[in-house]
Formats: sequence, structure tokens, C-alpha cells
Amino acid sequence: MPVSRDRWSKEFGEWFRNVLLNAEIMDYRYPIKGCGVWLPYGFKLRKNVLKILRELLDSTGHEEVQFPLLIPETSLAKESRHVRSFEDECFWVTHGGSTPLKVRYALRPTSETAINPMLKLWIRSHRDLPVAIYQIVNVFRYETKATRPLIRMREVTTFKEAHTAHATAEEAEKQVEKAVSVYKRFFDSIGVPYLISKRPEWDKFAGAEYSIAFDMICPDGRVLQIGTVHNLGQNFSKAFDVTYETVDGGREYVYQTCYGISERAIASIVIAHGDDNGLVLPYDVAPIQVVVIPIPYKGKEEPINEAVRDVVRKLEAAGIRVELDDREDLTPGSKFYYWELRGVPIRVEVGPRDVERGEVTVVRRDTLERSGCKLDAVVEKVVETAKQMTADLSKRAWEWMRKHIHYVDSLEEAEKLIKEREGVIQLFWCGSEDCGREIEERVDARVLGVPMDESLEREGSCVVCGRRTRYLVRVAAAY
Amino acid sequence: MPVSRDRWSKEFGEWFRNVLLNAEIMDYRYPIKGCGVWLPYGFKLRKNVLKILRELLDSTGHEEVQFPLLIPETSLAKESRHVRSFEDECFWVTHGGSTPLKVRYALRPTSETAINPMLKLWIRSHRDLPVAIYQIVNVFRYETKATRPLIRMREVTTFKEAHTAHATAEEAEKQVEKAVSVYKRFFDSIGVPYLISKRPEWDKFAGAEYSIAFDMICPDGRVLQIGTVHNLGQNFSKAFDVTYETVDGGREYVYQTCYGISERAIASIVIAHGDDNGLVLPYDVAPIQVVVIPIPYKGKEEPINEAVRDVVRKLEAAGIRVELDDREDLTPGSKFYYWELRGVPIRVEVGPRDVERGEVTVVRRDTLERSGCKLDAVVEKVVETAKQMTADLSKRAWEWMRKHIHYVDSLEEAEKLIKEREGVIQLFWCGSEDCGREIEERVDARVLGVPMDESLEREGSCVVCGRRTRYLVRVAAAY
Repeated sequence: MPVSRDRWSKEFGEWFRNVLLNAEIMDYRYPIKGCGVWLPYGFKLRKNVLKILRELLDSTGHEEVQFPLLIPETSLAKESRHVRSFEDECFWVTHGGSTPLKVRYALRPTSETAINPMLKLWIRSHRDLPVAIYQIVNVFRYETKATRPLIRMREVTTFKEAHTAHATAEEAEKQVEKAVSVYKRFFDSIGVPYLISKRPEWDKFAGAEYSIAFDMICPDGRVLQIGTVHNLGQNFSKAFDVTYETVDGGREYVYQTCYGISERAIASIVIAHGDDNGLVLPYDVAPIQVVVIPIPYKGKEEPINEAVRDVVRKLEAAGIRVELDDREDLTPGSKFYYWELRGVPIRVEVGPRDVERGEVTVVRRDTLERSGCKLDAVVEKVVETAKQMTADLSKRAWEWMRKHIHYVDSLEEAEKLIKEREGVIQLFWCGSEDCGREIEERVDARVLGVPMDESLEREGSCVVCGRRTRYLVRVAAAY
Repeated sequence: MPVSRDRWSKEFGEWFRNVLLNAEIMDYRYPIKGCGVWLPYGFKLRKNVLKILRELLDSTGHEEVQFPLLIPETSLAKESRHVRSFEDECFWVTHGGSTPLKVRYALRPTSETAINPMLKLWIRSHRDLPVAIYQIVNVFRYETKATRPLIRMREVTTFKEAHTAHATAEEAEKQVEKAVSVYKRFFDSIGVPYLISKRPEWDKFAGAEYSIAFDMICPDGRVLQIGTVHNLGQNFSKAFDVTYETVDGGREYVYQTCYGISERAIASIVIAHGDDNGLVLPYDVAPIQVVVIPIPYKGKEEPINEAVRDVVRKLEAAGIRVELDDREDLTPGSKFYYWELRGVPIRVEVGPRDVERGEVTVVRRDTLERSGCKLDAVVEKVVETAKQMTADLSKRAWEWMRKHIHYVDSLEEAEKLIKEREGVIQLFWCGSEDCGREIEERVDARVLGVPMDESLEREGSCVVCGRRTRYLVRVAAAY
């Protein structure tokens, strides 16, 4: 039976912070607020997750690059809405040694203003388009709210940002769709369920025409934004004078998009699958996919150890990331606890009775379900168990999320559900900013925007003004 | 015949900068001095080089981690020599938004002072030792000298820094040897020749007991430091109070080492193997290992294209990174030029005569030597050519370096050779700082230190004071 997710939903924040430290993902005790250290085990998880993301981007026409961290204030200031939104959130470098800098440098909060001066050099003609590049870098925000490891950091150590330039508005629009589809495949591959919403005008990325966001629901009922896709139109290309020569010899500003996923992707795995015992990692990204634990029995040491070595050899030969836990100062029970906390998807136990039967015992991390198999068939059993567990993790997470989306007809109901941290509320909304703001205020939550992943078959009345509408809007308490 | 390396030795700086831009490694026109953009091709080269480095470190007991970029001034100041050396070279973050920070943050120039506060939390007992971690991150130096792409950057985008902690001085000493051996294997694997020298007291890393450095000689006769290994003794552990409980219950400060390799490793490849035509990349790290170019011939288009497709299929199936250049608006000659500039190790041409004979033509980038082989044997031919070329690149580079090391008996000779940019000069030296400083002043060059990779069988007289000595010292103009 799966371990209950609801027992810890109330202390989610504490659970999350502890599991990151105790499972050795991130140590958040660094002497600067909002900065953390990726520990070896966490770093491997991060690497496996980024590998999936890179493969998806590389196979869909993106090229990886790396831009400088520092952005001159003069560049940051070129797009007026952008700078207004970010200048108070930037860390500013003002001195080199004891010398004051003539122009201050921002630690990049995001890289549009680092990239556009270079695009201006690179793009001359329509033959240079489209451009689709990405980088995986650290970005910085001077967060004044409470910081949280992986979720709200001052140094976001891991930000995958893609930037594209196109000849026409239509192509930029298509790129937005492509980005959404890449992100769906990414989150599907780690079994993390998501809602896709078009953010309201007042909450779009500074400098964008519109923004689309992926959100997940956390066990405490709050949503976490885990990915964003922005159509920038010509806002940045006009600010930075990025033009191209058209087929008929004219000049035109390029159309741009950008889209990002941060280390919240790692957080999303922890949140979507974790339980009372700690992490539950999807098999494909787990740093250790199988841990093998001998169950010692007096007089049977040798046959047990031999079987254990045989299991490890077989799994390694099949390319499975396997760890043998043969520490002699720990009981099997404390080893189980240790590896469950770290989310290792599959445990193989080899005890005296297993050996007698030429078998091993295979235990799934998510359900803790035990089953035996012949030692000779251990690879097939692991592969099959992994496949089933991967599918079940995703299914269970999606079901859980769907149970936490509520359609309501009144602000009173919405307010009640938000207060009880029941998840995402969907309401009819006329689409006006006035009514949207009113909803946010009345239910004390954030408007996530209009669903992009659900089409309405009926119409209703805006919960504020009563106008008939076919728009739903999503509202939730948000991280 | 290999293209001459000497013709461009005089304009080495210009050649280097141009080849990085034209071969699409790094674009150095970013609006901040000393900051560059890794272009897609360069990023792939960097990735392949880092893969080798990571594999070497992972297989020798190191674990990859990631620490924050920002270091509070209070941490940086704890080791007094360290802070004195670095404080004038740091970029300082003084503001978050418009709020002045209470404690300034340095952009890490190196991470000893970021890591030690965490080691203090992690290390309790002798059972927690040794610790051997590394990270590959960006570091910053406020360079006031002329900056150069990959060689002297203000943002060093790629710094692999390893940090270790041990129970005893002997173990730290052993780790230094291990690090030197890992670095040898690394540079050997990219065919880059090196000199290993123990830096003089006055040029060691700030906070180290002693420093060992890897240097290479550039075509302009100047040396470039490409790797360093430091024995830190207990200097940092005392400053940060990093202690462990010994086996017999006492407390002792840990002994530490650290060692680093930066993006100069990429520069070293460019420098060691490049020629008049551009880059020459070792096969193992080349983003594209083989480029296939059809030589069109009227009336034979179809058989040529068919053979080309066959070649590409075969190479791809063998796991070789292959690119087909079938651009129709370029002549074969301009394609040769294009791919030679980018250093692709092997070119396969398929022309009408090749097709008639069921053959292809294989051309090595380093010698531009051409040879034919049966189309069916193209994979074997490529593998064999790659192997030979890898060995030859290394051999040629080592021979070139050895020709640029000169043993001299007087300061006058040394001065003359340094002035003529003839490379590294080796002199007898008594070992005293006074004589060392005098050498530096008189020959207008830097003392690299005492050779670690060469043992002397004879003794001589210090070129300054005339004392008998068995020390050689290396001197060179340095980047």
C-alpha cells in the first residue's frame, strides 16, 4: 500500500526542507540566505534530469550556448517594462576591487538583455533565421519574501532558458506551441502532473506579449509555477534594434520567444512523488536505480554474499545504476530506512531463504510491495518493476492533482476552498482585469489564468460581474 | 605536409582571437570587457573536454557538487593571506535592488572560503574523512591587465576546482601526487604537452603551503599556466575551525588540498594543435569527427549522392559524430576551407572517380594527407586514421615544446632568449628568493619554479650568486 501523502500535507514546508537535507539533495545552511549547496547525490539527480531536458531541446532544433553572468545596467535598461520589473530584484555589482565601476552590472535575473546585443551582431538576413538557443545557468533574484530551497532561491543555481528569433509573428506563435509541447514531454518523462494556463495580462513576463505557465499543486494546496513560455513579439528586438533583411530586400524587426524551466523541476519530482518515508525517485532519473542489500544469517554468510555479488554483476552488466550496501555496522532495517529516504526506486534483498530457493526479493519504493523472482531473472524483474512503477507514479500523481481542482460558482465557495488549501479553483470569469483583480482580492489567492489544456463546452456567468462568458479562470494560493 | 606553425607565431595573439571567433568557439564582442559567449560549436567542444575531466575525477574518488557563487566578505576575510591576495581582484555585490547589503558579497574568485564553512558542518569524525569534491563553475577576477578570450577573462566561465580534506599531512601530500597524476592523464588525453614546476614561495597560491603548476609554451614563446595543484596544509582549516575527532578521541584540524583547471584547457587545445588554416581538434573531443563532402560531377549526381548517404549511414552506425555537408551553394573548395577552419579531424570526399572505383578519399586535418579506401572499409579507415592522428598530434606538440626549452648558464643568454621569445629557459639557481627575484628582474620574465618532471643528474652554479646547487629553475615570459 502506498504511504499516505495526506498525513504530511500540513507540514509540507518542513517536510520538504528536511527531505532535501536528509536525503542529501541540497544543504541549505550556506551563510547567505537563499543560497544552497548541491550535495553529490542531489547533483547526480540534477544531472539526470538535465540530461532529459537537454536531449529534448537538442532534438527539437535548439543549440546550447553560454552567455556571461553580468549584464551592464545600460543593457538591462533598454526594454522599459523589463527594467522596471527587474531592477528592484537585481543584485548589483558596483565595484571591481576597490574601484567603483562606471556602469553597474546586474547579476542576470534572466538573459534577454544579455542575448539581444549579440543577436544584433549575428542576425543579418532572413537566412540567419530562425535562431533557437538555450543555456543552463545560474540566475539571481534579490528575494525579499521568505526563501525556500529549490523553490525560491536568491541564487537559482539551475535555470534552463531558451531564446528564439523568427522572421514572422506566425513563426514565433508556432515556436510557443512547440515549447509547450517540449515542456509537456519533459514533465511527462518525470511523471509530474501540470496545469497549463495563460497568465492574465497583469501577471505576464515583463516585456512579453503574453505568457503561458505550467503549474503543479503541492500537498499543502498551493501551486508552484514550474515552467513558463513567453511570446515576446517585437518588444525586445525594437529595444535592441535586432533586424533582418527580408527576402525582398526590406528590413524588419525579428519576432522572439523565450521559455524557462528552473531547478523547481527537481523540486517538482520531490513534491509529486515523495511520501512519509522520504524521496521517491522515478527510475529514469534516480542516481541509484537499485540498491542490493544482503540479509545476513549466521552460517549462511558465504552463499548469501555470493548471490549478492551475482545480482550486482548481472544488474551492472545490464547498464543499471546499482549500489551494493554491504556495510557491516548497520542492520538491514536501518539500511532500508536509509535508502527509502533517498528514494531509490528498487531494493533487492537477498536473505537465507532466498538463497535456498535460488531467488531474490524485489521491493518497490512507492508501494513497498515485495515480490520474489529467480536470481537468474533479476534483470528482467527489475526492468519490469521499474516500468510499472514509472507508470504508477505518474498515474497516481495525476489522479491526486485532478482531485484537487474544484469547479465552483461563487466567490464564497472559492474563498472557503482556498482557505482550506484545497488546491486550484476554477471559476467563470468575464476576462476583464477589474474582475480578475477583484477575484484575487476576495479569495486571497492568485489568478493563474485561463486553462490552455481544457476546452469548455458550456458557458456561465462571471463570478464578479455576472456577464455571460465561456472563459474559465484558475485561482490558487501560490508559491 | 603539416602547415607551418612558425609563420603565425609572431601574430599569435591575433590569430588566437580570430580563430576563436571564426571557428565559432567564443564570441568575445560582449559589451563587458573580459566576458565572452560560448557559441554552439564551442560549447560542444567544451562539453566533450569536460566529459573527459569528469570521468577522470569521478573514477578517482571525487564527487561533483555545486556551491553558491556569492561569498560573504566575512567568510573571504577569514584566511588573511587569502583575502589580501584576492580582495582587490574581486567583483563586489553591494546592493540588492536599491537596498545596500549589510555585508558585501564577492563573486567567487575561487571557492575555498565558500566551501570551508560547509566542511565545518559536514566533518565531525575521522570516519567522515577523506572528503574529495569538485565543481565546474564560473569564477570572477577583476583583471586590470589586458584580457584575452579563454586566457584572461573577467568571467572565467569554466573553472573545475577540486577540494579535499584529510586526517593527516601525509594523506594530503599523497592527494597532491594523485591530483598531479590525474592532470597528466587529462592533458595527455587531449595531446597537450606540459611542464610541471613547483612555483617559488613568492608565487604560490594565497593560503597554500606550496603550489605545483602545469604550464604549456605558446607559439609566441610565452608560457600559459593550464593547471595548478595546491597543498593547503591546515591554513584554511584553522581559519575556519574545521576539525575532526581522531581515532583516540582527540580533535585535530583537517589537512587540505585544492587543484584547478579552467577553460584554458580549451585554449590549450587550440594553441597546441592549431595552424594557419585554423583549429585542429583531437578526434576524441571534436564536436564533429568526420565531415563528408560530395564532389559533384555532372551526370554522376545520383551515384555520388548514393555513395555519400551510404558513407554517412555507416559512420553514424559506428557511433561516429559525422556531418554531411551537402550545401548546394558552396563549392567543394570553400567547404574544405570552412571545415578546416573548424578543425574537423577527418574529411571524407566522394567524387566521380571514387564512385567508379567503389572508393572514398580520406583527408587528415593535421597533415592534409589524402588516401583512398574502399567505401565498405570507411569505418575502419576513419578509426585507424583517427588513432594515428591522435598519436601524431601529441608527438608533434611534445617535440615542438621540447625544442623550446633551453638550458643556459648565464643571465645574459637567458635575457637574449627571453627577448627573442624562444620559450622556457632553465638555469641553475641556489633556491633563495633574493636570487630568484634578481633573475626575474634581470631577464624580464617570470620564475616558473623548480621542475617536478625532470631530475637533475649534475650540479652547477647559481647564475646569480654562484653557489653550487642541484636546483634548476624555469624562467619564461608568461601570460
